[in-house]
Amino acid sequence: MTTKKFTGVIPPVVVPLTQGRELDVPSFERNVNRMIEAGVDGLFILGSSSEVVFSTDQRRSDIIQNLVRIVDGRVPVLAGIIDTETERMIEHGKRAEQMGVDALVATCPFYALQGIDEIEWSFRCLHDALNLPIFAYDIPVCVHNKLDTDMLVRLGKDGVLAGVKDSSGDDISFRYLVMGNEDAGHPMSILTGHEVVVDGAYLSGADGSVPGLANVEPYGYVRQWKAAQEGDWETVKKEQDRLARIMRITAVTKGVQGFGAGVGAFKTALQLMGVFETNQMPRPVHSLKGENVEAIKRVLEENGLL
Amino acid sequence: MTTKKFTGVIPPVVVPLTQGRELDVPSFERNVNRMIEAGVDGLFILGSSSEVVFSTDQRRSDIIQNLVRIVDGRVPVLAGIIDTETERMIEHGKRAEQMGVDALVATCPFYALQGIDEIEWSFRCLHDALNLPIFAYDIPVCVHNKLDTDMLVRLGKDGVLAGVKDSSGDDISFRYLVMGNEDAGHPMSILTGHEVVVDGAYLSGADGSVPGLANVEPYGYVRQWKAAQEGDWETVKKEQDRLARIMRITAVTKGVQGFGAGVGAFKTALQLMGVFETNQMPRPVHSLKGENVEAIKRVLEENGLL
Amino acid sequence: MTTKKFTGVIPPVVVPLTQGRELDVPSFERNVNRMIEAGVDGLFILGSSSEVVFSTDQRRSDIIQNLVRIVDGRVPVLAGIIDTETERMIEHGKRAEQMGVDALVATCPFYALQGIDEIEWSFRCLHDALNLPIFAYDIPVCVHNKLDTDMLVRLGKDGVLAGVKDSSGDDISFRYLVMGNEDAGHPMSILTGHEVVVDGAYLSGADGSVPGLANVEPYGYVRQWKAAQEGDWETVKKEQDRLARIMRITAVTKGVQGFGAGVGAFKTALQLMGVFETNQMPRPVHSLKGENVEAIKRVLEENGLL
Amino acid sequence: MTTKKFTGVIPPVVVPLTQGRELDVPSFERNVNRMIEAGVDGLFILGSSSEVVFSTDQRRSDIIQNLVRIVDGRVPVLAGIIDTETERMIEHGKRAEQMGVDALVATCPFYALQGIDEIEWSFRCLHDALNLPIFAYDIPVCVHNKLDTDMLVRLGKDGVLAGVKDSSGDDISFRYLVMGNEDAGHPMSILTGHEVVVDGAYLSGADGSVPGLANVEPYGYVRQWKAAQEGDWETVKKEQDRLARIMRITAVTKGVQGFGAGVGAFKTALQLMGVFETNQMPRPVHSLKGENVEAIKRVLEENGLL
Repeated sequence: MTTKKFTGVIPPVVVPLTQGRELDVPSFERNVNRMIEAGVDGLFILGSSSEVVFSTDQRRSDIIQNLVRIVDGRVPVLAGIIDTETERMIEHGKRAEQMGVDALVATCPFYALQGIDEIEWSFRCLHDALNLPIFAYDIPVCVHNKLDTDMLVRLGKDGVLAGVKDSSGDDISFRYLVMGNEDAGHPMSILTGHEVVVDGAYLSGADGSVPGLANVEPYGYVRQWKAAQEGDWETVKKEQDRLARIMRITAVTKGVQGFGAGVGAFKTALQLMGVFETNQMPRPVHSLKGENVEAIKRVLEENGLL
Repeated sequence: MTTKKFTGVIPPVVVPLTQGRELDVPSFERNVNRMIEAGVDGLFILGSSSEVVFSTDQRRSDIIQNLVRIVDGRVPVLAGIIDTETERMIEHGKRAEQMGVDALVATCPFYALQGIDEIEWSFRCLHDALNLPIFAYDIPVCVHNKLDTDMLVRLGKDGVLAGVKDSSGDDISFRYLVMGNEDAGHPMSILTGHEVVVDGAYLSGADGSVPGLANVEPYGYVRQWKAAQEGDWETVKKEQDRLARIMRITAVTKGVQGFGAGVGAFKTALQLMGVFETNQMPRPVHSLKGENVEAIKRVLEENGLL
Repeated sequence: MTTKKFTGVIPPVVVPLTQGRELDVPSFERNVNRMIEAGVDGLFILGSSSEVVFSTDQRRSDIIQNLVRIVDGRVPVLAGIIDTETERMIEHGKRAEQMGVDALVATCPFYALQGIDEIEWSFRCLHDALNLPIFAYDIPVCVHNKLDTDMLVRLGKDGVLAGVKDSSGDDISFRYLVMGNEDAGHPMSILTGHEVVVDGAYLSGADGSVPGLANVEPYGYVRQWKAAQEGDWETVKKEQDRLARIMRITAVTKGVQGFGAGVGAFKTALQLMGVFETNQMPRPVHSLKGENVEAIKRVLEENGLL
Repeated sequence: MTTKKFTGVIPPVVVPLTQGRELDVPSFERNVNRMIEAGVDGLFILGSSSEVVFSTDQRRSDIIQNLVRIVDGRVPVLAGIIDTETERMIEHGKRAEQMGVDALVATCPFYALQGIDEIEWSFRCLHDALNLPIFAYDIPVCVHNKLDTDMLVRLGKDGVLAGVKDSSGDDISFRYLVMGNEDAGHPMSILTGHEVVVDGAYLSGADGSVPGLANVEPYGYVRQWKAAQEGDWETVKKEQDRLARIMRITAVTKGVQGFGAGVGAFKTALQLMGVFETNQMPRPVHSLKGENVEAIKRVLEENGLL
């Protein structure tokens, strides 16, 4: 039941900063409204793309509160409660619940090494301590643990998890997750986080996507989801090819990597398109400059976004 | 031109052994003939699934010669020339050329660490020393290096590579490889090696697949490729879901891993289905026994293969 | 100058919990006093062994305040300010400074991927924002980045870092760090965090050690450091061999791993030795039980600690 | 008994090539004779430093035969039989045995993933099929598997292994290996392969070293081993510090990595010192040129080797 609510295109919201690294509220409003008006089905705040791990607790609260105010119930809001371990995640979860979001998103514990028993127990602790639906966030590139497919399905069956946001880069386990969820009566909403292979994920039965690139180009992802609903796979693939070309903004830069290359490119594109005032990044990440900005500009121009 | 020849379903051939670990020629013939009669478009011999790295040079020759004899020109044959470094691969390549295969398949060097310059030079050395079309085999789980997409496209444009067999498990780079190859005029045949996500690969534009599981169930992969050719994506997906369920034979065993779990399961299934005499494995890999065999049998029964 | 202060044996303090997972202050006092009375040269609180990433901000403050009160100036105190990114670490650092510790210990950022430029900038930001001496904590098994030796020496020369706690498991880079620090005029105190190879680290010129095992057996590490100061390397080695045998408490357990196996074994040993009331672990880590406790007991008995 | 024979300094022999990439026999003689005259205790041929994986079977035979002829019984010779899997290693072992070497050195299988059971069985198969003492070569950076300490001790006790060459970079497991071997009655000779931390390995009880750098500077390693035998640890450490500075030849180059940086630097140093005619590398590795050669020259000059 809860899962019906969390399907379709649910972009992770990129957070604009002023030059002085304060939250840039007007730019934030423009970005959020633009995505909602384009027809997205939900928004995910305080995930990796929202620079959650760079944000102090105060900043996290500011971001959620502003988002809830801007969204004003137009689409459901999922909020990340990402932190190193269980008790800290519960604290974030309780704060987020008081601010009026619709679901919570948690990774497995990280920094200290954990086995599968501890990971499963961690999700069960979150469920016991919190009231909102919980999504598991599978992102081994950040937490250095791949969530086990059978464990996820078990947690879905037991009502602990309402869904999974899969950024694992493992399309094989993704398919088994979708199949396992189906066999279990579809208790969870399975969302892919990989912008350039959403077509394959939809074909395999995914319930939606969480594409960071939808901050830059929400329209294509919305059209793609509609086409998938109608079984029009040629359109799904055609939209995907175009979006994959736009995603090259994260690959044409030089001398940057990881978060700085990915979210840095999104912020730079949004600045070039007039949505953001700056492409400022949180410390210790440098914002993109000079030739890197030019390279991104060229990709946007080639794809008709400028 | 060469690439037209190497499209569709091209299974990597699993090699049967007698209990004494000799090549079991009658079982080999049954397996090869069964796949050709099911309609596969080619065969890949001496890849990971053919236990190439377990085979002495004499055994490698025996395997190729028997295969060429059995196939007798009915479908094209690609032969692996896998070894640690360039000169050794060239030796294997020269021998394979004399035995009448149609193309060669090589990984990047492994064991000694190499950078991208050395990897590119290695493929160019192979091309200079050998006469047959060369496929690059991207299999980081074995060689611990992911082949760079831009390098592959460059080697395709330069006529060094006739294609890529992608077993990288990275569907994002796979899509960019397919797009880059398309933009370059389609010089290469791009094949996926991942049995359970062939549908997504076809949707993204792959030229074919190299599914180990096609030794067990070639019919589904042949039907799937035909459906993809006709744009019937619902069938492509439906066949894939069925094949993914059969692929569980590689996951239901306990206490085994890697090659022993994967190829061990294929051999066990083929024995249960009467194609192979034994499920014997090359040393130092144990063949599957007892409950592991029972678990595989159940998967085959559930999917109507027994 | 500051570095003279931070040499010798500086154990990371293991934190006892009550069965209900509250801070067990009486056990904490016993453990700290026992180590100081054994002659340790300093204490490191809120590192990995102090379950820093499992602790809420309130718990972190409780732990530091209790430790500062118990130590009462007898030895210098280093406090970890470990968190995902720079601004969050600065917040922890400001709080710790107000509680009267003597130095701060920080890892590089983690979760979001960073390059060497960002890592260096992060340490410089900490130095600019905080007043106490800062130690870099090199622990790739937790943060998935190895700190670059040349960068560390550069930060030492520039007065940004007062020292390094090396838990990298890389004895080659450790030697080059010690040599680079020496060539730069010894601006930093270089400490090894690896309990079982402290002898080699001392021989190569380390300024001290941060052995978690010293919670269980501080006397041996104190004797070892004195012997090293006197150039009595046979004793240094002999003590090390004995300590390595005691460290087997972290390897004789079954079905546990990482933090649960390491700190779990320390807590269990301290309970068996009457220092701790319980061997309770923070959620989601299970405390050791049954045969695992028996196995640890046998190691302690064999080495005369029970 | 056999192990007494294999102690002290046993360099892995770097192999000189002509510009046309043929074996340069006169340079080979100069290098081997220089090391023997400096007092090394044995020689290890066809390890990673001898470019074993780059060599065809014919080249492997040429290298061994030339070495055995040059050495002429003055020191024991250990020969690598490195290849992907068991049967292939046995073939190399049988050939090496006929050429008059004194011991064989084998890694675990690589390329195809193996578990600990398969690895142990592989060593037992080698022992059953071959007659000479067998050393296990622990080099996870090349084979992507760390040999288990308990397994190695078990194989030593059972007479399967005569020793271990440890290039694992894990000084903690190395200590436990030395202790486990001691507790088992010292059936194996435990040798470290890490040039810059030999002092710590000797202090912990190693039976010798296999330093690639000893091709460049054998005298220091010979003096160091003698000092270790006499318990003169200050000299052991002093020699190590000097050797660590010379080892910088492998780190001062730019744009190269792995084998090309390490063995490339050794070959370049030997050419600059007049021992080798060229610094030619096997394909696909580029030989060092220009500024990289100058950087190595400076290190050699600073350390009095030119």
